[in-house]
Amino acid sequence: MIKVGIIGVGTVGTSVAQILVDNADIISARAGTDIIVKRGVVKNLSKDRGLDIIITDNVDDVLNDPEIDIVVELMGGIEEPFEVVKKALKNGKAVVTANKALLAYHRYELAELAKDIAFEYEASVAGGIPIINALRDGLSANHIESIMGIMNGTCNYMLTKMTNEGVAYDDILKESQDLGYAEADPSFDVGGYDAAHKLLILASIAYGIDAKPEDILIEGIENVSQDDISFAKEFGYAIKLLGIAKKDGNEVELRVHACLISQDEMIAKIDGVMNGISVVGDKVGETLYYGPGAGGDATASAVVANIIDIARSGKSTPMLGFAKPLDGELTLKPIDKIESKYYLRINVSDKAGVLAKITKIFEDNNISVETMLQRPATNNSANILISTHIAVEKDIQNMIKKLESLDFINSTPVMIRIV
Amino acid sequence: MIKVGIIGVGTVGTSVAQILVDNADIISARAGTDIIVKRGVVKNLSKDRGLDIIITDNVDDVLNDPEIDIVVELMGGIEEPFEVVKKALKNGKAVVTANKALLAYHRYELAELAKDIAFEYEASVAGGIPIINALRDGLSANHIESIMGIMNGTCNYMLTKMTNEGVAYDDILKESQDLGYAEADPSFDVGGYDAAHKLLILASIAYGIDAKPEDILIEGIENVSQDDISFAKEFGYAIKLLGIAKKDGNEVELRVHACLISQDEMIAKIDGVMNGISVVGDKVGETLYYGPGAGGDATASAVVANIIDIARSGKSTPMLGFAKPLDGELTLKPIDKIESKYYLRINVSDKAGVLAKITKIFEDNNISVETMLQRPATNNSANILISTHIAVEKDIQNMIKKLESLDFINSTPVMIRIV
Repeated sequence: MIKVGIIGVGTVGTSVAQILVDNADIISARAGTDIIVKRGVVKNLSKDRGLDIIITDNVDDVLNDPEIDIVVELMGGIEEPFEVVKKALKNGKAVVTANKALLAYHRYELAELAKDIAFEYEASVAGGIPIINALRDGLSANHIESIMGIMNGTCNYMLTKMTNEGVAYDDILKESQDLGYAEADPSFDVGGYDAAHKLLILASIAYGIDAKPEDILIEGIENVSQDDISFAKEFGYAIKLLGIAKKDGNEVELRVHACLISQDEMIAKIDGVMNGISVVGDKVGETLYYGPGAGGDATASAVVANIIDIARSGKSTPMLGFAKPLDGELTLKPIDKIESKYYLRINVSDKAGVLAKITKIFEDNNISVETMLQRPATNNSANILISTHIAVEKDIQNMIKKLESLDFINSTPVMIRIV
Repeated sequence: MIKVGIIGVGTVGTSVAQILVDNADIISARAGTDIIVKRGVVKNLSKDRGLDIIITDNVDDVLNDPEIDIVVELMGGIEEPFEVVKKALKNGKAVVTANKALLAYHRYELAELAKDIAFEYEASVAGGIPIINALRDGLSANHIESIMGIMNGTCNYMLTKMTNEGVAYDDILKESQDLGYAEADPSFDVGGYDAAHKLLILASIAYGIDAKPEDILIEGIENVSQDDISFAKEFGYAIKLLGIAKKDGNEVELRVHACLISQDEMIAKIDGVMNGISVVGDKVGETLYYGPGAGGDATASAVVANIIDIARSGKSTPMLGFAKPLDGELTLKPIDKIESKYYLRINVSDKAGVLAKITKIFEDNNISVETMLQRPATNNSANILISTHIAVEKDIQNMIKKLESLDFINSTPVMIRIV
């Protein structure tokens, strides 16, 4: 019999305990052994969670219990769980976590400590979708050319509603908060940080690359407006917040931002709170993984799958997919060097000669215009919507700074990259 | 170092050998060991395959070579490869196969023989998509409620072309044969048998159910016409050949046939030669897996992933996902008892009273009509297109027999199930 200790019995932790009871029959048949939760650790002992497990508020009751084989870390945070899982590993316990922030900062230290013991984290990326499994095992024969994913259900829900129902950003944010999809402080989701944590984890498995959130380009969806959505529709695009990892020679670019993406791409067809991740391998071509990226039961499904894996075979795969470092290691491409097509929305005073001045600035910054649309705005202002050919991030950023400084530009131009 | 013998060096076998050379750097880093092909077995020694491996026409040169750790079976057929892989297992060699027909007939005997040694078969279902991996490991915490998949790229290509370009069935079949998507004898693909083999493999992993192709409902796409496609479009459906496994109490229904499916479903959006499989688990909800279902490199990507798994950890998971039988085993639902909504196309002589007679026959057979459309055909005939509410397969089959016997019915009515 395998005994589990759960540290952090909130929504996901409760679901984990419940699944191990509800589905004990099939889990036991698949694992070849019974799996039970021996103990759960909580902060508030007085709250009833409706579970038939021993509850404690002392994490050492789990970490020092010699009967416990697997520690499930669901406490949240970064440094505190880091200390907890280190101690668990030191005490010879396998670890399962759903904590993407912990991994975004400490995955390489953990991989080092977990060389001979299982440390699994399927639930940390895209909730119930077994994407770690697919990338680390199913696609292991491939050099990964790119990963492109909808990794944040809140943003996707908001962008879908804005697109399908014409709702304004602020209204849909409020609705998402009321529905519990977005937090009271939504910046972690809508600012792209949540997706960035997940992207960093996937990039390590794909490329063996060690990067931290601070190192990469992270933008959110806060500036997307109905003007942009109607431009997107007109030109056959959807707007999605994507996490993108792309190999270019010996460099890997990692970035999270809103994107205009052709409506024909499978990933553009993923709507609502769902997540979807497209992976292109040099041999297999494109595969895509779709499903619920959040929710107690969906996330717990991935946690319990990891527990079953460990019950079946202990440690079977290196934590980050590499048994030894890759020769000729890949490095992170500097943000300035990223190349993309770009869309810009520039709000200008509606005066003669403005268009000529703007196009001159594009030219001066090596930016070649692909399409241009001018639309009336309000109060003698106009929106100029421009898409470019492939350009370099540095040039675009310089140009935006230049545009901002001009007196006929009414606000900071909005830029969305085109995939 | 892990040494591999490949039995059958055709398109996929050549790709397997090539990937192990092309991607040796990343494969070695991921597996923690070098992996090389020591020997390949072919029927025709004189054909040059452009590979730098020892070629033999004697299968025993691989099976009896003590240096070979893993036998890759890519010879095709059923009984001959069955004998070969049995001997490989007996000689202590792990086996990797892409042979769905072998597994459709012999997977339980093989699982018995491979209790203590790895037997992997990721490539046997949906080519490059790691669906075995997802279902057996990633979703192992779930009771699987249903599996619904586009498992045959040839049929999906044909149906997509018929839908998007209005091409007739016979024309697109010929084009598919010219492109190499369909065989000279296309019945294995268009008749649904290929998809059925794959469905049976997935059903064993999901439900532990042992069924053979003969036991289940298998129909193809041969009767789908432009009439049906325009009906589908009008009512918001796509037409797809689907493999379906569905749990209903203690019974599992398994069936392959053309389906009308709502255009809003993700699986309806999968076009061309691509495959896609939707799996609904009781805890995770719906997840979907999309990618190339065929092709040398895509299939070989899955074969090599299995080789890497074995190099990493030997046997880590029971072959069919169950370490021991499930209590209260599930049984196959008899075909007659399957329930569905149905669409019928009935070609009738254009005479007074025909519609009344047909609706009477529906009523007599407990079939409740949901929508009805009458369209002019040619030569004083008309097509009556009917969709029903949920009905029982037996009643539909009886009714179709009854309709066929009537003198104003010009040909066997075409029936397509609605998902």
